[in-house]
Amino acid sequence: MIRHLLSGADLDAATATRILDTAAEMATVAGREVKKLPALRGRTVVNLFYEDSTRTRISFEAAAKRLSADVINFSAKGSSVAKGESLKDTALTLQAMGADAVVVRHPASGAPHRLAEWVDGSVVNAGDGTHEHPTQALLDAYTMRSRLGRLAGLSVTVVGDVLHSRVARSNVLLLSTLGAKVTLVGPPTLIPVDWATRAAAANTSGGGAAQSPDITVCYDLDAVLPTSDVVMMLRVQRERMTDSYFPSAREYARRYGLDGQRMRRLPEHAIVMHPGPMNRGMEITPEVADSARSTIVEQVTNGVSVRMAVLYLLLGGNNA
Amino acid sequence: MIRHLLSGADLDAATATRILDTAAEMATVAGREVKKLPALRGRTVVNLFYEDSTRTRISFEAAAKRLSADVINFSAKGSSVAKGESLKDTALTLQAMGADAVVVRHPASGAPHRLAEWVDGSVVNAGDGTHEHPTQALLDAYTMRSRLGRLAGLSVTVVGDVLHSRVARSNVLLLSTLGAKVTLVGPPTLIPVDWATRAAAANTSGGGAAQSPDITVCYDLDAVLPTSDVVMMLRVQRERMTDSYFPSAREYARRYGLDGQRMRRLPEHAIVMHPGPMNRGMEITPEVADSARSTIVEQVTNGVSVRMAVLYLLLGGNNA
Amino acid sequence: MIRHLLSGADLDAATATRILDTAAEMATVAGREVKKLPALRGRTVVNLFYEDSTRTRISFEAAAKRLSADVINFSAKGSSVAKGESLKDTALTLQAMGADAVVVRHPASGAPHRLAEWVDGSVVNAGDGTHEHPTQALLDAYTMRSRLGRLAGLSVTVVGDVLHSRVARSNVLLLSTLGAKVTLVGPPTLIPVDWATRAAAANTSGGGAAQSPDITVCYDLDAVLPTSDVVMMLRVQRERMTDSYFPSAREYARRYGLDGQRMRRLPEHAIVMHPGPMNRGMEITPEVADSARSTIVEQVTNGVSVRMAVLYLLLGGNNA
Repeated sequence: MIRHLLSGADLDAATATRILDTAAEMATVAGREVKKLPALRGRTVVNLFYEDSTRTRISFEAAAKRLSADVINFSAKGSSVAKGESLKDTALTLQAMGADAVVVRHPASGAPHRLAEWVDGSVVNAGDGTHEHPTQALLDAYTMRSRLGRLAGLSVTVVGDVLHSRVARSNVLLLSTLGAKVTLVGPPTLIPVDWATRAAAANTSGGGAAQSPDITVCYDLDAVLPTSDVVMMLRVQRERMTDSYFPSAREYARRYGLDGQRMRRLPEHAIVMHPGPMNRGMEITPEVADSARSTIVEQVTNGVSVRMAVLYLLLGGNNA
Repeated sequence: MIRHLLSGADLDAATATRILDTAAEMATVAGREVKKLPALRGRTVVNLFYEDSTRTRISFEAAAKRLSADVINFSAKGSSVAKGESLKDTALTLQAMGADAVVVRHPASGAPHRLAEWVDGSVVNAGDGTHEHPTQALLDAYTMRSRLGRLAGLSVTVVGDVLHSRVARSNVLLLSTLGAKVTLVGPPTLIPVDWATRAAAANTSGGGAAQSPDITVCYDLDAVLPTSDVVMMLRVQRERMTDSYFPSAREYARRYGLDGQRMRRLPEHAIVMHPGPMNRGMEITPEVADSARSTIVEQVTNGVSVRMAVLYLLLGGNNA
Repeated sequence: MIRHLLSGADLDAATATRILDTAAEMATVAGREVKKLPALRGRTVVNLFYEDSTRTRISFEAAAKRLSADVINFSAKGSSVAKGESLKDTALTLQAMGADAVVVRHPASGAPHRLAEWVDGSVVNAGDGTHEHPTQALLDAYTMRSRLGRLAGLSVTVVGDVLHSRVARSNVLLLSTLGAKVTLVGPPTLIPVDWATRAAAANTSGGGAAQSPDITVCYDLDAVLPTSDVVMMLRVQRERMTDSYFPSAREYARRYGLDGQRMRRLPEHAIVMHPGPMNRGMEITPEVADSARSTIVEQVTNGVSVRMAVLYLLLGGNNA
């Protein structure tokens, strides 16, 4: 088993599958009378959050507590970080206090990787800048597998501001490993240039959709819906909407928002995903968000199971 | 047993009494060597606070932990709520993460009721706007019963800014159910018009004190003290004091503040209550607050027992 | 055993030694499979922090949880304190909620002493203004003893802004009790006048170094290094650096900063300490901070063991 979970690219197919299988076992705990396992009793999990993210923090906290670990929340605001302490010294401090795992959310891409060089314990990337969010990719994969029965061969369409989305990046990496086909859809200014170029180079048709071995890029959402097994809507980050390369809100919703009419272009079995929190009316309408196709609430539930599995496997339970 | 605790009106006499009796049993835990019961092991209680209230949050947290529940604190500040997430989506997220109970404090009256429509778990109203704070009413009733031996027939005088007080509202509802007689005292601008009108309509004497079947309104504190078994002083909220209908601080303290001289007009057995935190020197003087009549510290202790009872009964212990 | 830990002066040699010995036993828990002791199960430890100090709060939180206590974090920001509640009422509230120990950090010197007058439980001073920080002194003493085998007769040089340092004050008091010789080094404006005067009065040589029975004051760091067993670098508080009596940052680092060259003037066995968080490049260079002489990371680890010992002994384990 790996020691850290920093990137979707850390996971080969066997490891990723083992995490998903373990998460399925963890999910059965939720149905027991006492919803706790003693596996991590005496272990300490530190949630080191340099950015606010109550949802992710709570999900990891619930996961760790269900495994009987002690959880310490460290919000970097107003901490010694504000007094100028370096990430390295913070890392060494947490390790010295006996942190067995550090779950880190940081605005700088790559911060969890540096942290992992300094500590003996396990580091879990809970989102670093615009870079990665691997447990989100795992819970998304878990949700697809549990709804559709498999991952290999699935057509997954990721829609929105792919450029700034750590959710998209981690999903692309993990889904490729697990054999799904990913299509990226969004405004041209919000698709990473390297992915768009790579896809365009592999494309011989000159048409709107460009294929590469890994990913496809397309600027027309309506064109790809009929062949999508999964549509994953990305959250529009309001702070981006004032950027010059961002379309107007109205234009964005019109071209890339998922409403009921668009949803009905999907195959009957297809599902709609969103990492939350949603901007209802922007990238997704309430009709879609609350429909039977929507897995948004399941994703949250699965997030706890997947994080239980990740912590359990990284920390090796009582037998580490 | 009820599933949620949203309002003092949710409680009939039998249910309220059962909570008070259970709280009395819970209070004995505080005297045990290990002050913990295993009743809620594996259950998750989320404290969802949209307003700061350290006292109330800590009281619920201590109560839940003494029952061995896992507690997750969710301060809405700087959370995805700040990113525009709706209360409904927050509720669905917490439920999806496996929250068995959500304790909610919210600035909008009625928010806990809406929350209760969306989640399967239990919702406890820990204060919503100027509306209700039912566990405060329960701990106040518990304190009266334990000091005075009964609730039926007690004369309870509630003094201050009744209009904006969720404590007053919940107390009026619960105390009426339990057979106590409530008199509201305060500046005319700070007594709810419907209550004052109802009381005036029932009043045939034309005097200063107006009676109705449920409540009496009076503007003269000194007049009602000699017949009060309980005087409950409400906290003056400093942010209200700039309102045009609020008397000057000096005038307020002079007419509605409880000092030693006024306290001595009470019957010998009468008690003085305050929900805290106090403005010493404003609605209550230190002499009164620290006197033997004062139950202010007991109320805090009883608050933990009552909240243990509420969580225990709502969540059904291990037998739910 | 003492009931509170408010000052380094509270500890006689026997009590301090008992804490250090207990901490050594606690340190063995870190090596066990399940790193938890049941000693404080059912006890509640409240971290009452009126100043941000994530490191200290987390250290106490980890210590209490390893002893199976319940921990409640109370950050005074945005609490009823902000609504004007007095320290006394906060103390009575915490006690009424069943806090067995209150760990308090406060900007006002002496606040923990006042708190201790009001509560029945134990109070641990986690730093009060520029006054004291006794558990820091204990963990420093523990670190010296574990690295150098003894405390009696050690020459300990404390360097920096002694005047404003609660770490220095508590260390001077405790180290004197335990038989170590303390030399204070820093800019004359940053050495407490009473200590400098006392040292000068006891000095008959007229030289740069002035001796008293307890402490020596010296303004020349290079002069004392060759005879120091321990050099304890104090943190420069950036907010002090704009004070008129504070040397320029450059001048400070040149005269009182510890770099590799200075470090090599120390005896071979000597160690370098720092309470953290460090200003690398200011009071200490990275070469020194990361050298084998540096105990900075050990101090953090020892901090958890020492705080476990303090909580265990103050609360008397399950046999209180």
